[in-house]
Amino acid sequence: MYLKDLFAFLRIPSVSALSGHSDDIGRAAAFVRDWLEQAGLDHARLVEGRGNPLVLAEWMGAKGKPTLLLYGHYDVQPPDPIEEWVSPPFDPVIREGNLYARGAADDKGQLFILMEAVARGLREPGGLPVNVKFLIEGEEESSGEHIERYVPAHAGELCADAAVICDTAMFAPDLPTLTTGLRGIVYGEIQVRGARNDLHSGDYGGAAPNAIEAAAQIVCALKDRDGHIRIPGLYDRVERPSPAELDAWRKLPFDVEAYREKEIGASALAGEPEIPLFERLWARPTLELHGIRGGFTGEGSKTVIPARAVAKISLRLVPDQRPEEVVSQLRDAIAHATPRGVQASFELLSASAPCVVNPENPFIREAAAAMQRVFDRETVYVRCGGSIPIVGLFEKSLGIPSVLMGFGLPDDNIHAPNEKMSISNYSKGLDAVSEYFQRLASLTRA
Amino acid sequence: MYLKDLFAFLRIPSVSALSGHSDDIGRAAAFVRDWLEQAGLDHARLVEGRGNPLVLAEWMGAKGKPTLLLYGHYDVQPPDPIEEWVSPPFDPVIREGNLYARGAADDKGQLFILMEAVARGLREPGGLPVNVKFLIEGEEESSGEHIERYVPAHAGELCADAAVICDTAMFAPDLPTLTTGLRGIVYGEIQVRGARNDLHSGDYGGAAPNAIEAAAQIVCALKDRDGHIRIPGLYDRVERPSPAELDAWRKLPFDVEAYREKEIGASALAGEPEIPLFERLWARPTLELHGIRGGFTGEGSKTVIPARAVAKISLRLVPDQRPEEVVSQLRDAIAHATPRGVQASFELLSASAPCVVNPENPFIREAAAAMQRVFDRETVYVRCGGSIPIVGLFEKSLGIPSVLMGFGLPDDNIHAPNEKMSISNYSKGLDAVSEYFQRLASLTRA
Repeated sequence: MYLKDLFAFLRIPSVSALSGHSDDIGRAAAFVRDWLEQAGLDHARLVEGRGNPLVLAEWMGAKGKPTLLLYGHYDVQPPDPIEEWVSPPFDPVIREGNLYARGAADDKGQLFILMEAVARGLREPGGLPVNVKFLIEGEEESSGEHIERYVPAHAGELCADAAVICDTAMFAPDLPTLTTGLRGIVYGEIQVRGARNDLHSGDYGGAAPNAIEAAAQIVCALKDRDGHIRIPGLYDRVERPSPAELDAWRKLPFDVEAYREKEIGASALAGEPEIPLFERLWARPTLELHGIRGGFTGEGSKTVIPARAVAKISLRLVPDQRPEEVVSQLRDAIAHATPRGVQASFELLSASAPCVVNPENPFIREAAAAMQRVFDRETVYVRCGGSIPIVGLFEKSLGIPSVLMGFGLPDDNIHAPNEKMSISNYSKGLDAVSEYFQRLASLTRA
Repeated sequence: MYLKDLFAFLRIPSVSALSGHSDDIGRAAAFVRDWLEQAGLDHARLVEGRGNPLVLAEWMGAKGKPTLLLYGHYDVQPPDPIEEWVSPPFDPVIREGNLYARGAADDKGQLFILMEAVARGLREPGGLPVNVKFLIEGEEESSGEHIERYVPAHAGELCADAAVICDTAMFAPDLPTLTTGLRGIVYGEIQVRGARNDLHSGDYGGAAPNAIEAAAQIVCALKDRDGHIRIPGLYDRVERPSPAELDAWRKLPFDVEAYREKEIGASALAGEPEIPLFERLWARPTLELHGIRGGFTGEGSKTVIPARAVAKISLRLVPDQRPEEVVSQLRDAIAHATPRGVQASFELLSASAPCVVNPENPFIREAAAAMQRVFDRETVYVRCGGSIPIVGLFEKSLGIPSVLMGFGLPDDNIHAPNEKMSISNYSKGLDAVSEYFQRLASLTRA
């Protein structure tokens, strides 16, 4: 394992959602390109364009063997609230068998599993047993715009038999897991305007509209206290998973009380009480309020009636919901929920469709077998509540399935303080991907 | 007019609500003490104690004449949102007959009217026609703790016939106004805790409680969309103003459409629709949400379920509501409104009782006459929706009425960006206070 190189990669604060980090984005992209070139890949290069650079590289020396499109992202989430990190987010350290850093699991650490597995294969006397094309982006945590335009426009160049993505988590420690479904997302801002300026609550309380209150009222109108979304039409296209899938989920090893207490750490779980937990997390749309900007939130007492507010919200989508339709339904619901005296609008920041993959596909089956071999347990199939927009894009533009071999763990704190990756999972992940390459070499090319 | 000295005073960013400004607080207090000493007052001094220093000074040379307790505050509100200021908040400038700076009206500019009127009197051959005791604090915009302890403990030293406070606004330009009632306030934070850490909304959306949403839900439960406060018992002690007072308010020169459009700048007014506007502003309790801290409110998309939230709220109180009782009612209502999976508590930051003064008192009558003389119009009596906690304290501890001669204007943007004071009002205020001193000299001492 090249942990030293991974440490150097993790030290680059390549936060794509904050414009102040554009230099770091460039450094992270160049780091990946240089590393792949040194590992022996051909045509390692940056593709510049509107948005952050893509990194491409390939090795096509396994004549007659399948070709894999290996995807990952070099950008990371913002580190705030930074004061809650035990060690600095961009200063990776190992504690108790875990590697702590922003991006340790999502996705620098997992991307490095793919990179190292390929480098390991290239060092073998016979070379890598399959062909690979790396496609690595730097906007997975923000807009994803560049890759969204690139893939449809370069379908020939990217042609492959399947995509492999290491950006998900195993269901439990030591339990090999393949992810067969992802939720989509609609993320944006509700922007509210009330009075011309902030006003004094003594002089104007009882007359001036309050933009922060209006934002709170709008969001409360969009979702009830039991987690049911109150946006007309939103559930119309929601498909229930098959009875077999629901039954498999019921059999997963799981202690809901331990999950509530240890993993979430709350006095009760939220969400639709009449829906089983995994269905809520994987197969139901949800709405979250991420924060409300505006007014006075500092130390002490400032008696202001805020004139402006921005509520950051997102919806997770499930098959067969369509992002454009959901945005339109959401805009109507916001208009309906806006109190008098204020104007509210919704600005879309990003969107992606939900998707499901077929577990009967041979590229999925061989991945399950490879993981079973390394972890010595039967691979389970789950879905993921998160969104990996690229999976839908690969399906639509390249016509290929995505194999989601994830080696994260449920308590990795991705998108939160103290993100980590298990060193043991990193090592087994590397073995499993190498084993997968070997197995694919004996598959008849589709 | 000593505008140069006032400019120097306004340049000190003596923000009491932010702990980073404690040096500025000390500089502002020393500035006032030195100025009063140079103006010829006796015993000009700082009183240190828990909280920001008080400034005291007196002149007791008018034997047999009434004694006035002159109150003001040298601290100011925080300047944010700072980007909305046309000129920097602590760099005073005059534009179109107005002096722009944080504190121009609230209260450094108006305090300077009292200071200059006294200095002017002391320069006259016969000296000042009344006795004066200055009591100036530096926590009016934050806790007010120091003066709250000082006044009851030093009632003998502070004994006077009436207090004079220049910290309110005239009802309209050129319309002399006395304020006969003030709302009280309860200001604090609703603190909400959900999960142990912030969590990823893809992985946990549908299971993890969202603290920001819970804060929004609690606040929305405390007040309906028509401005009615939903806290059981809150309206029980609310007293309607007398028919004569309500009738006088109806006769005030006022254009509600101009108020909505020019002064507030919103598409509609908020607040209880069935209650007339001045009653809503001056004689009804109101609740405002000032801001919600927590989660992600920056640029871009961070898909976090916030684990912590702090909602800053305040209630304005009217006679005969009691702050302690309101806090208790509020705590009960918050407990009742807290959704499952989170804990919420209320931390009180400051409180003061509402109060009304009797317009028949001779110190009030002479003030009305002095203002009428200078402004050449009949003085009107109004109430103020804001809170000046010291008025209740003077009444309770010293047994004296407060004369609220204010020379601000409704559009002075106090507590907001671009605070200003009319130079003409400053000048007429100075004349009116001087005239008031003269008139009081002929009053038989009570």
